[in-house]
This record gives sequence, C-alpha cells and structure tokens, in this order.
Amino acid sequence: MEHAYDEWSIQAYLDKLASADPEPGGGSVAALVGSLGAGLVTMVTALTLGKEKFAAVQDDVAEIRHEAEKLRGELTGFITADAEAYGQVAAALKLPRDNDAQKRERNRVMQAALKGAAEVPLKVAEAAVAVARLSLPAAEKGNPNAVSDAGVAALLADAAAQSAALNVKINLAWIEDEAFKKDAWTRVEAALSETARLRDVVLALTYSKI
Amino acid sequence: MEHAYDEWSIQAYLDKLASADPEPGGGSVAALVGSLGAGLVTMVTALTLGKEKFAAVQDDVAEIRHEAEKLRGELTGFITADAEAYGQVAAALKLPRDNDAQKRERNRVMQAALKGAAEVPLKVAEAAVAVARLSLPAAEKGNPNAVSDAGVAALLADAAAQSAALNVKINLAWIEDEAFKKDAWTRVEAALSETARLRDVVLALTYSKI
Repeated sequence: MEHAYDEWSIQAYLDKLASADPEPGGGSVAALVGSLGAGLVTMVTALTLGKEKFAAVQDDVAEIRHEAEKLRGELTGFITADAEAYGQVAAALKLPRDNDAQKRERNRVMQAALKGAAEVPLKVAEAAVAVARLSLPAAEKGNPNAVSDAGVAALLADAAAQSAALNVKINLAWIEDEAFKKDAWTRVEAALSETARLRDVVLALTYSKI
Repeated sequence: MEHAYDEWSIQAYLDKLASADPEPGGGSVAALVGSLGAGLVTMVTALTLGKEKFAAVQDDVAEIRHEAEKLRGELTGFITADAEAYGQVAAALKLPRDNDAQKRERNRVMQAALKGAAEVPLKVAEAAVAVARLSLPAAEKGNPNAVSDAGVAALLADAAAQSAALNVKINLAWIEDEAFKKDAWTRVEAALSETARLRDVVLALTYSKI
C-alpha cells in the first residue's frame, strides 16, 4: 500500500475498512483497538507525572508510561502488518497450479503465508495482554480523575485480544502443521483468559472509584 | 479544535490521546471503536452484495448495509462531539465564582455542560447496541469468508458500549438532577445487557463457522 495505515486519516481508514477490499479487516482493527488502549494508559500517566499530589508513585508511573509507549508503537505497526500479511496469502492464492510441481510450490508458499497471517494477530493478542496488565496499576496509582480512561484501556485490551483470536483461528483452519496450530492456539487461550480476568478486575476497581 | 478528529491521521489522534491533554479521552475512543464495528458490518455486506451465491439474501443484506452506514456516520461524528462536550465542562470550570450570583450562574452552566457531556456517551452506547444487533444477521446471512469480521463487530460494539458507560457514569457523578441521572443510568444498563448478550451469541456463531 502507498502509506502505512497509521498515516491515513481515521475517515479514510474507516472507508477502506467498510469497502469490499478484504484488507484492512478485523485483524488490523484489533491492532488499532489495542493501540488505543495503550494510548489511554499513557494518557493516565501523562495526567499523573510531575504532580506533587502523586509524588509517591512517580517512579512506578514513569515505568508504566515507558512500557505503554513501547506497546503502542508495536501495536500501531501491526495495523499495517496485518493487512500486509493478508496480502501474502492473497498473492499465494494467485500462483499457478497447472501441474504437480506447481501445486506443491503453491502449497509451500501458501502454508508459509498463512503462518505469517496467523502470527500477526497472535502478537496483537500478546501485546494486548501487556496493555491489560498495565491498565491495572494505571487504575490503582494514576490520577483518579483519569481512572475511567484506565478502565477503557482494560476493556479495549480485552476486545483487541478477542478480535485478534478470531483472526488467528481463521488462519489456523488452513494450516497443515499441527504442532504450529496447537502452540498458536495454546498461546491465544492463555492471552484471552488473562485479558478477561484483568478486564473484570480493572472495571470493578474503576467503578469503585467513580 | 482545528478539524474534526475523523480528518486527523490515526497516528496524530493516538498521539493526542496519549498526551496530558484531557481530550480526546475514553468517550471519544468509545465512539471510534463503535465506528470500527459499524465499518466491519458494512465490509461483510460489501463482500456479500452482488454475488450470485448469496442471491437469496440480497435484500436483507442491503438493508443491513444501509443501517450500518447510518450508524457509522453517527458514531464517527461522536468522536469529535465527545471531545467538544468535554470542552464545555472545562469552560464552565473556568467561570468566576467571586459572589453568590456568579456561583449560581457557574453552577447552572456547569450542570448543563455535564448533561451534554453525559448525553454523548449515552448516544454512543445506544448506537453501539444497534451495531451489535446488525452484527448478528451479518454473521448469519453474510459471506461466510467474512464471518470473523462480523464477530469482531460484535466484540467492538460491546467494548464501545462498556467504554461509553464509564464516561456516562463519570459525568453523572456531578449532576444534581436525580431524574436525569436515574433515566440515563437505566438506559446505560439496558444497552450494556443487550450488547453483552449479542456479543456472546455472535461470538458463538462465529466460532462455529470458522
């Protein structure tokens, strides 16, 4: 594509999402939603750092900020990487299959492309777990005026992981390497149980503070 | 602000979100997440309409598309409207309170601004319910190759409603009109139970198809 999607306007991205063009789709959106969660964690830290009132937690909050910004950068990259990985699958689909040698080569390229397309949402799900983990100390130690933003970060981290999981699953369905499939889905399930747990903990804490 | 946020690049919006500037915050993000859900419903319809294979459902899918695009337009508008409503509250906070007349006037303006700031996320939550309702027939009748996108739409509609709810709550905390508060929270609870229900139904259907 001409530019990375994070350089596109929100409206242009939404319009392309809504079009018949198969990318960007749910996997790219999962990465964007995770980025928004990371951005909200950083916002909570920005409203806490440098304030006398929160002097006791400055070091902890600075560490949360550092981690959240690293995750935001990763997740923002995945908005475009997911669409590119899908492009590799689409390209493999167009390879010739006129004889057995071509069929074998097409299958080899396709299997590699499918693994790539499964790995991006898998990384999104695991980055979303890390965002969810940061949303808890953000809600506990951050400026209480911004606690609802920490709560939204936990909600979005869970939604990003769940959305990414669907996109891992859809690619695994066509992958032949059983060990890869088993390992990938084990990682997805671990991510989902952790974001769901953190979502409930952080939401309860947030409601108790507003 | 200089432009509506939907004209901003994704990166610029994320950077402002992550800054110490209190807007955009979780309410604006809730509207964006709802817009992404509506865009995914439209994408499913775009991959279904005009295809011989799905001839039997063309009219139903065209109707889903029409509704999803209307909701996407509304929700995209709320990305900026939420930030603007917050601006009204911030402006009211700066009004003078040197004597009783000023205090009364400041309180009157503040209460009106708080109601406005609660109403935007309330509308986001209700539009998110409508997106969740569309994600079900999109998953049932749409092109099965795009069913994961309908599943992600249901997940995002629920996350948008839950995120909006936190932002209604934070504004209600300062509102004095008990009837307004009760009515607003009744509407929020109705929205949350409906998006949670639809999220579970559509996710189960999606996993059964991939």
